[in-house]
Amino acid sequence: MPGRVLIVSDTISSMPELGRRAKAASRLLAVASTDLKNLGLQAAADALESDTPAILHANRSDVAAAEAAGMEAPLVDRLRLDEQRVSGMADGLRQVSLLADPVGDITRTWTRPNGLAMSKVRVPLGVVAIIYESRPNVTSDAFGLCLKSGNAALLRGSSSAIHSNLAIAAALRRALSQVGLPADALVLVDDTSREAATEFMQLRESVDCLIPRGGPSLIASVLANATVPFVIDGAGNCHVYVDVDADLDMAIAIVGNAKTQRPGVCNALESLVVHRSVAGTFLPALVGALDGVELVGDAEAQAADPEIGVASEQDFATEYLDLKLSIKVVGDLSEAIAHINATGSGHSEAIVTRNEAAAQRFTQEIDAAAVLVNASTRFVDGEEFGFGAEIGISTQKLHARGPMGLEQLTTEKYVVQGTGHVRA
Amino acid sequence: MPGRVLIVSDTISSMPELGRRAKAASRLLAVASTDLKNLGLQAAADALESDTPAILHANRSDVAAAEAAGMEAPLVDRLRLDEQRVSGMADGLRQVSLLADPVGDITRTWTRPNGLAMSKVRVPLGVVAIIYESRPNVTSDAFGLCLKSGNAALLRGSSSAIHSNLAIAAALRRALSQVGLPADALVLVDDTSREAATEFMQLRESVDCLIPRGGPSLIASVLANATVPFVIDGAGNCHVYVDVDADLDMAIAIVGNAKTQRPGVCNALESLVVHRSVAGTFLPALVGALDGVELVGDAEAQAADPEIGVASEQDFATEYLDLKLSIKVVGDLSEAIAHINATGSGHSEAIVTRNEAAAQRFTQEIDAAAVLVNASTRFVDGEEFGFGAEIGISTQKLHARGPMGLEQLTTEKYVVQGTGHVRA
Repeated sequence: MPGRVLIVSDTISSMPELGRRAKAASRLLAVASTDLKNLGLQAAADALESDTPAILHANRSDVAAAEAAGMEAPLVDRLRLDEQRVSGMADGLRQVSLLADPVGDITRTWTRPNGLAMSKVRVPLGVVAIIYESRPNVTSDAFGLCLKSGNAALLRGSSSAIHSNLAIAAALRRALSQVGLPADALVLVDDTSREAATEFMQLRESVDCLIPRGGPSLIASVLANATVPFVIDGAGNCHVYVDVDADLDMAIAIVGNAKTQRPGVCNALESLVVHRSVAGTFLPALVGALDGVELVGDAEAQAADPEIGVASEQDFATEYLDLKLSIKVVGDLSEAIAHINATGSGHSEAIVTRNEAAAQRFTQEIDAAAVLVNASTRFVDGEEFGFGAEIGISTQKLHARGPMGLEQLTTEKYVVQGTGHVRA
Repeated sequence: MPGRVLIVSDTISSMPELGRRAKAASRLLAVASTDLKNLGLQAAADALESDTPAILHANRSDVAAAEAAGMEAPLVDRLRLDEQRVSGMADGLRQVSLLADPVGDITRTWTRPNGLAMSKVRVPLGVVAIIYESRPNVTSDAFGLCLKSGNAALLRGSSSAIHSNLAIAAALRRALSQVGLPADALVLVDDTSREAATEFMQLRESVDCLIPRGGPSLIASVLANATVPFVIDGAGNCHVYVDVDADLDMAIAIVGNAKTQRPGVCNALESLVVHRSVAGTFLPALVGALDGVELVGDAEAQAADPEIGVASEQDFATEYLDLKLSIKVVGDLSEAIAHINATGSGHSEAIVTRNEAAAQRFTQEIDAAAVLVNASTRFVDGEEFGFGAEIGISTQKLHARGPMGLEQLTTEKYVVQGTGHVRA
């Protein structure tokens, strides 16, 4: 067991003990009423607001340490809290209290020929572990979604945000106790060592699901070290395919929106695929419309407009998260589909076309969490889908695929009612 | 790359190349019609029957090698094929052809306020990898379920069954080609080295889901080595709780059935929990009824009948898979639930009671894939649940929980239809 692990109370516990505490709390949360969980969310929101001075004080020390250590400005900005951001976290909890509670939903009932009455019931996962990087708002956001779905949240943030996270968690835990919910519905691990991260990913006795929220190195560490079940919130190398039958004005609007509306997020466009028959018209028009975006493409794309630079093979596999776009010209829909399936990350892929048959083939054959027809990839997130909130966007196929809301934080249980049935 | 890997054709390929071949086949399977998949299943059944002599010939060499190496008789029996068993494998494929195809089911549709038309569609996982131990029938059974659900099967059996598996796979692949399906819908890895097993579990480029079928050492290896997403088909330390309000005759019938009807399977009873108020009556009656079962219990259970031996703490955590039963006496329902949640493996747990409130608390608070009221744990399997067939019983909570049928071999994809929608 590496080091000692402090919880937000003054108790010092080992990592397995923290897991057991979260597990014990999860048993109580699983049978907590929707009203009580909502009361907890509202109390937690109030506590964040009343603790704002303490949270901002803690955050200032994190920000000062980060700046002294030379952290890049955009990362410092993610770390920094102000009154408005804390108030936003509180509002987020209140919004989650308004969402429908998925726990207890009976998703299917049937009767077997032998008379056994079968049902399938939605239940919480149990303990949801989240390991995340610098944004301290994840502490509150993840806790809220876990609580509403009846799960205990076992959280492990980054060392750069530790003081902020401890202050936030202290407020949330106090609120839980106030309404009669177990404070251990939120357990924050404050050992931010690498050894503790590995031990955290291997708490098979207590963790039912691990969700990493962070960059490629965190994901790689989960793949290498985790023994608990996990859901990967992975990269988004998203494509838009402009078909031979596209409305080209619509295509320019969609490509512009998907690329530039918020380039740093996972559902932003990274790579454009254009049908050969329209490339000569479309690409020069796009160059005119996409001011400030660096464009690189294959030889055909370069030939279409002198502003388009040279793309390497690596470019087509790169999630820029920046104002840069790779462009590939293809001969037909089949080639477009094969290229996207080969280079995409299974996140969000769009086609622009007026041809219904082409749209149908694209939606059927593209292997991704979300496939869009005549719409920007930017729509792929929990709020835009109507889920109310999201804890991440899964790029794997098991359990949850695409935006993960409250329902994806649950599992199902079979309930079998007999009258003395024995098997012959 | 460890060693060279042979496929059932004469081609020699690397492990990543085998994965890519399965992935390429999975693209075709994902859009194959139900009729064509059923034709493939029927042709595969016919091929197994017509190849029976070759399959039995290959199997004899596996069995001879196993016996020469001193393999235990029950394991040799699992390995051995005869005409009836091959015919049973063929019948299994024909039965799968009669099951409903889950692929293409639209599980939900909704419209967003901005007019985006949303749907959620059931699609295959892609490549399902299965690593398994000596039973050669898994080669055919797993292939059949994967094909019907539109998935390519990437299989890796044990060295002890390699000749049998190669002969079975050759028949199945020939049948696929005959009906115009890709032979690589079934790829059998015949490098049975430990290094190849590890490489198999790390094929993230091509494998969408890994399902291990085997004992604790295989599961441990998956937890330690796998980087692909997996579903654990784990142990069943199943309990029956005999409540104070139980019909004791019913309880004896259910305990007897759950323990003795087939003791070597995962849904068999391993541990009995009895309410203190009925232990003195129930346990002596049970001792009389459970002939040939070794009983061990805590002090109170021992006091109830001299035939009940001493149980250690370890006994209560043991899946015997044999004619042995541990017995714990508890003071109330809460203690029963806490004991079962602490020692169970999350598989199948039953209560015998006439008290509806007790039954409801038990089904709500027990954390397991299946919770049964007044019925034997032996009912928890795919066929008894009406799923038609199963590829395993998941004891994890992510993706699939409990018996896994065709539906659990699929995932869902969001399809978003717009009319030029861009995000504001």
